[in-house]
Amino acid sequence: VSTDPIWIPGAAGSGFGSDHLPLGRFRRRDSADARVGVRLGDYALDLTGVAQGGPHAETFASGELTTLLASGVPVWRQVREWIRELVTDRDHTAEVAPHLAAVDSLTMLAPITVGDYVDFYASIDHASNVGRMFRPDGEPLTPNWRHLPISYHGRAGTVVPSGTPVVRPNGQYLDGSGTPVYGPSRRLDIEAELGFVVGVGTELGETVAVEDFDRHVFGVSGLNDWSARDIQSWEYTPLGPHLGKSFATSISTWITPLAALDHARVALPAQAPRPLPHLDAAELFGLDIDVSIRINGEELSRPPYRSMYWSPAQMLAHLTSNGASLRPGDLFGSGTISGPARDQRGSLLELSWNGAEPWIGHGGPRTFLEDGDEVVLGYRAPGEFGELSLGEVRATILPAPTGSRR
Amino acid sequence: VSTDPIWIPGAAGSGFGSDHLPLGRFRRRDSADARVGVRLGDYALDLTGVAQGGPHAETFASGELTTLLASGVPVWRQVREWIRELVTDRDHTAEVAPHLAAVDSLTMLAPITVGDYVDFYASIDHASNVGRMFRPDGEPLTPNWRHLPISYHGRAGTVVPSGTPVVRPNGQYLDGSGTPVYGPSRRLDIEAELGFVVGVGTELGETVAVEDFDRHVFGVSGLNDWSARDIQSWEYTPLGPHLGKSFATSISTWITPLAALDHARVALPAQAPRPLPHLDAAELFGLDIDVSIRINGEELSRPPYRSMYWSPAQMLAHLTSNGASLRPGDLFGSGTISGPARDQRGSLLELSWNGAEPWIGHGGPRTFLEDGDEVVLGYRAPGEFGELSLGEVRATILPAPTGSRR
Repeated sequence: VSTDPIWIPGAAGSGFGSDHLPLGRFRRRDSADARVGVRLGDYALDLTGVAQGGPHAETFASGELTTLLASGVPVWRQVREWIRELVTDRDHTAEVAPHLAAVDSLTMLAPITVGDYVDFYASIDHASNVGRMFRPDGEPLTPNWRHLPISYHGRAGTVVPSGTPVVRPNGQYLDGSGTPVYGPSRRLDIEAELGFVVGVGTELGETVAVEDFDRHVFGVSGLNDWSARDIQSWEYTPLGPHLGKSFATSISTWITPLAALDHARVALPAQAPRPLPHLDAAELFGLDIDVSIRINGEELSRPPYRSMYWSPAQMLAHLTSNGASLRPGDLFGSGTISGPARDQRGSLLELSWNGAEPWIGHGGPRTFLEDGDEVVLGYRAPGEFGELSLGEVRATILPAPTGSRR
Repeated sequence: VSTDPIWIPGAAGSGFGSDHLPLGRFRRRDSADARVGVRLGDYALDLTGVAQGGPHAETFASGELTTLLASGVPVWRQVREWIRELVTDRDHTAEVAPHLAAVDSLTMLAPITVGDYVDFYASIDHASNVGRMFRPDGEPLTPNWRHLPISYHGRAGTVVPSGTPVVRPNGQYLDGSGTPVYGPSRRLDIEAELGFVVGVGTELGETVAVEDFDRHVFGVSGLNDWSARDIQSWEYTPLGPHLGKSFATSISTWITPLAALDHARVALPAQAPRPLPHLDAAELFGLDIDVSIRINGEELSRPPYRSMYWSPAQMLAHLTSNGASLRPGDLFGSGTISGPARDQRGSLLELSWNGAEPWIGHGGPRTFLEDGDEVVLGYRAPGEFGELSLGEVRATILPAPTGSRR
């Protein structure tokens, strides 16, 4: 691994060097305008500011990422090269310095306005664990599982940026005696996932081949698909999860461009049977991303993204295989990332084996989330100059609202 | 029934009188701009034009319905009163006439940009029919069905306006021998539904009580939830429908304001057991809307919306009962509208009893949709001055695309 030539103080080796360049949106202390910027160590470079008057001014003028997302690979490359030159060539110091701000001084905003949000179920260990828990006498995987990446639509309007507190939802579920009640979820859970942000859209009727993934997907985010297991298990037959998930989905405030993950590409684990031709390709890649789940500062699990069965490119090919169109800002999640080992499970449902095997937290044996818990998902991947620190997803659980209708 | 005082030629008694006033978006022949307008008989009044310089100019200036949707009940009432005065008081003839255009001369546009699209399953006859077909040995309804209005998220980005052709989707399904294949759906179906368009949004964490429905929902649309039954039945375990539905959902180009449906409100059929308090209210209303399904000009069925089990207000209360936020332009569908009689079924799945009992079309016995079929959903409801003709949903089926990957 060679040394990062970045001149921003402290950025080399921080996980946010010139090989990473994740993009986000924020407000600076001195302005009410939303800005697009790039993270460099503990600083953010205000691209809306530094681009003014130059060839990329239009791309960042609105303070939204949408223009860049929609612009496609050639522009994505040019912008990345431009930023790399700014931060690695000291001749640009005077030009860049006024547009640097400490990350701690910024108000981070939602990085994207999500068009459609789709969530997959692409981890064979996660799907098998769920099958073993809920269908103990049957095959862990449903018959379709190895033939297509199972997925459903989630609620785009409740995707919130990291840092937004998550309020425990009220909902309908069966109490101990099998009677439906409405009240605060007692089985609030996490799902540690990776999110994929669509850049270039398609027209209705178009499909995206597995090989064309890079032309359409701009980058990745951290993603926590909060799940109220009691609400979900009562509602989901026969049309799938809805209220058990729709109260909030958290994503990281920084989006890592796919280009930064070239060094993280790994071969996909073998698929048997071979997928049908529209889901197959000569080279199927996974991503060597290590996820960490921390609750109240304690690391509970380290799910390995490289163990996922379905590749991101297969997910996108499936999603569009019926001609469904894509829009810039569409988001799809990988589904819970779980590895084969106990300490690689990506949900408390699995970590506590549906409550039967509590894990030990600061306060003693624990199963699902309690009010006041702080959950942090972290993501690390190999980069050109060392390890990248992908956007974390952080949230604190607040108590359910009380009211007269319960 | 009194006589409609509308002075627009031919509008009285047309289903589009001064008691209806459905809103839509279009381009006029003489301009590239999108306009918001109201339908009056065979004419549309260009509100973006006629509002210029007046108190409602801002509401219609953008050519989008969003500003009006978000503005709330007092503005909805003012705008409705203003339009009624324009079209019933002949003193406004000179002001109005330049902004009238024949409906046939307009290019109709999507009436709304859908935020989130949720589809319900609120007809007890439809859900029972599906249960009898697919779980012949069990109870027709799942245990949760009478306790909550079951629902799932659909794809907002593929909601298309009436008139848009629907391309038969390719997808993965089991062939006769039980092997998964990828190809054109062989069981393309309709679902005749009613759509509800959200006007006033909510913040994350808010709930909408059953009684507050009218404060949030602006109006209704016709809705056809196209469904590829073969794709859906293979994919939907355990996370619900996705690709079998996401290729297209058609809505009418005209949105009927709730205010026009005051005369269509009817008591909801009895619910047993009583819903939990958060889904209950002293007065639960249904809507006396007659739906008609025509294929290639022949009427196949007349589903009665008044037979729906769950009320629209209960659907919205459920949708927000976990604190999920609403945005102007969110859309929720009722689910297939089926009545108890055979000729009141709202899908070909039910009309052909899953293919076992073909219906007779022009060309002989038929089950699911064939390429070239023209499907028209019509909707009629009692209004102040006679019958309202709600926005129809029309589409022609085009053949599946062919390509090298199948």
